[in-house]
Amino acid sequence: MELLSGLRIIEGSAFVAAPLGGLTLAQLGADVIRFDTIGGGLDYRRWPVTEEGVSLYWAGLNKGKRSIAIDLSSPAGRELATTLITAPGDDAGIFLSNFPESGWLADTRLRDRRADLVYLNIVGNPDETTAVDYTVNAASGIATATGPVGSLFPVNNALPAWDIATGLNAVIGVLAAERHRRVTGEGQLVKLSLADVAFTMVANLGFLAQAEVTHENRPPLGNDMYGAFGRDFATRDGRRVMVVAISLNQWHTLVRATGIEEHLPPMERAFDADFRKEEDRYRARDGIAALLKPWFESRSLDEVRKALDEHGVCWGPYQTFTQLLDDDWRASPVNPVFGEIDHPGIGALLTPASPLRFPVDPPLPPAPAPLLGMHTDEVLDTVLGLSPTEIGRLHDDGIVASAVPISA
Amino acid sequence: MELLSGLRIIEGSAFVAAPLGGLTLAQLGADVIRFDTIGGGLDYRRWPVTEEGVSLYWAGLNKGKRSIAIDLSSPAGRELATTLITAPGDDAGIFLSNFPESGWLADTRLRDRRADLVYLNIVGNPDETTAVDYTVNAASGIATATGPVGSLFPVNNALPAWDIATGLNAVIGVLAAERHRRVTGEGQLVKLSLADVAFTMVANLGFLAQAEVTHENRPPLGNDMYGAFGRDFATRDGRRVMVVAISLNQWHTLVRATGIEEHLPPMERAFDADFRKEEDRYRARDGIAALLKPWFESRSLDEVRKALDEHGVCWGPYQTFTQLLDDDWRASPVNPVFGEIDHPGIGALLTPASPLRFPVDPPLPPAPAPLLGMHTDEVLDTVLGLSPTEIGRLHDDGIVASAVPISA
Repeated sequence: MELLSGLRIIEGSAFVAAPLGGLTLAQLGADVIRFDTIGGGLDYRRWPVTEEGVSLYWAGLNKGKRSIAIDLSSPAGRELATTLITAPGDDAGIFLSNFPESGWLADTRLRDRRADLVYLNIVGNPDETTAVDYTVNAASGIATATGPVGSLFPVNNALPAWDIATGLNAVIGVLAAERHRRVTGEGQLVKLSLADVAFTMVANLGFLAQAEVTHENRPPLGNDMYGAFGRDFATRDGRRVMVVAISLNQWHTLVRATGIEEHLPPMERAFDADFRKEEDRYRARDGIAALLKPWFESRSLDEVRKALDEHGVCWGPYQTFTQLLDDDWRASPVNPVFGEIDHPGIGALLTPASPLRFPVDPPLPPAPAPLLGMHTDEVLDTVLGLSPTEIGRLHDDGIVASAVPISA
Repeated sequence: MELLSGLRIIEGSAFVAAPLGGLTLAQLGADVIRFDTIGGGLDYRRWPVTEEGVSLYWAGLNKGKRSIAIDLSSPAGRELATTLITAPGDDAGIFLSNFPESGWLADTRLRDRRADLVYLNIVGNPDETTAVDYTVNAASGIATATGPVGSLFPVNNALPAWDIATGLNAVIGVLAAERHRRVTGEGQLVKLSLADVAFTMVANLGFLAQAEVTHENRPPLGNDMYGAFGRDFATRDGRRVMVVAISLNQWHTLVRATGIEEHLPPMERAFDADFRKEEDRYRARDGIAALLKPWFESRSLDEVRKALDEHGVCWGPYQTFTQLLDDDWRASPVNPVFGEIDHPGIGALLTPASPLRFPVDPPLPPAPAPLLGMHTDEVLDTVLGLSPTEIGRLHDDGIVASAVPISA
């Protein structure tokens, strides 16, 4: 039995956070039905796209969901979506959305139709003004602590980390509120702000406390770890590797693998340091790195790999996305969380299932994303119980649409 | 009633992901009991620290938990921890850990004591070899897509985004498995690999699909957004701002606020572009940025703020951590998810509650982290039902310890 089998979530969304929330639930076996306006919302054609204009972005974030296309500009379409959101069933009545919680999607309007609705609404700022991952990250301080030592400019990360954290928090909110409803019978509106996620997290991670206590900002450290020894090194063949020695045991394996042991006592004296201490290894990191650098520069990546793995060092190569695909078993069908499966309009892609490995047999396999409206009739039939005549009329009136192949 | 009120989680952990998972559950009202070895594990003194050596890192990631200190090197201590993990109760029997699932913490050993245990075990690589956020990020491709245009070197992000995503996924795993247990009566061992979280996420976000379909890697774009118009600009007073125009509406507000409208038609012709299209605004971003740059350079941050906010532009200033603390109401007690509260051994700190805003009254307030062992006797009494005599004997035998003030 799949983990969230039976649970039904209606998703009204665009971009990353809310679709990622629905994706995560779908990958655990929930029935996630995403509704969009006919023709698609703001993210149906987002880059990257194939030569034919099919969005790889959409395909990635909507896997395993059912898609229904509804004319949301018409009263009849909105009524249909409202009926879907508030449809009966103990395991239904869950709405995940980053659309404005107002008008026809106001909590009070929806709750009139289903009093125990679980409604998870993602907003930008806590006052519900607009914010996106990029603006929140700029404000979070993280961009000023990223980049080369001495950098005067903030550096954005290519990963939308706040969207990710918000999407996963949304899933936590849905599951916690659904548990609460099972225990008490009560539904509720849960608000989740992207800015709150970011700023509470930089507080949780000590960045804010450090600034508050010391009145200093953590500076950009290049690719060094903060507070322990960790740094990147170039290899003879032009690759780079990240090497980490946080625990004393990790430090010992690194020292043994690279044979720098005899140079450590004088280096300790030079820095007035005791390398058994994590903070001293951090303080003296430039000295330690100077000892290690020639070892890496005189070896190819393969030689580095062999020597470090032999000693159990904590390290990893830097890879591009194509190198990750071509060279790393962890992102290949050898790893059971991935499969090579066909996506409508795109073709075969390496496709992930949930990273949560539950002992279900067989495990829930990776699934493709639907084309927009691919399940319109099926949802109207099985979820809302409409007759073929009623479904036909909705099509005739332009209130719903089925999937059509995308063209550029 | 707090959302996860009644739920009890035992946490055996170190570093970021697992403690963040426990923190997230505690912030939603669960009773999270973290056990550590007497004297503290690898993360009890991690940097950043106060002048007195108290870890702000620990204080951030263990808020609202109860702490019990046990001599885990002794058979009696391990037996005590096992009893805690497998203690009876419908809402108990949940173990969240990133310790190796072997020896006394092997699933089979624990499950012999409680068959319906929910056991969430975080590992590094899928084959359970060591990996940390830094090594996984290096391998993920993200570092090669981060940094200045044309950069030949990978750039690490200061944010441990994969630890965050793993910790939040662990909470999802716990809640989904607990739901499953409620429905079926069955517990289970759930494995979650840091590397799986990272590589499935770069697949979900389309980075891998782009590489697979086009055989090209997304290059570093400086602080530009990919696929839409978004870029940073310098202001007259030496600040920087991030400006984003993804939707057509956001684009129109930006154009109106900065008055560049008359220059757009020739710029569209120069790039053979139609700026109503998101992808054309992306292709022509250097031309658009050239039109916008003088507007920002001739205005102070305050002037920029006034003009952009007036038009509802999606933007935000870059801030250091101290600027976030000093200048931004979203990270201040004005925002109800934050409070200024006292932490043992540290003093007053701006402290977050859960970013999930449930309509509980009053909301669960921010809480400090315990000192190590602060709840040892309380947990032995209320959870395990030990008598004062039995608790006293455990202290006498050195099997448990209570909190002592930390010194450097």
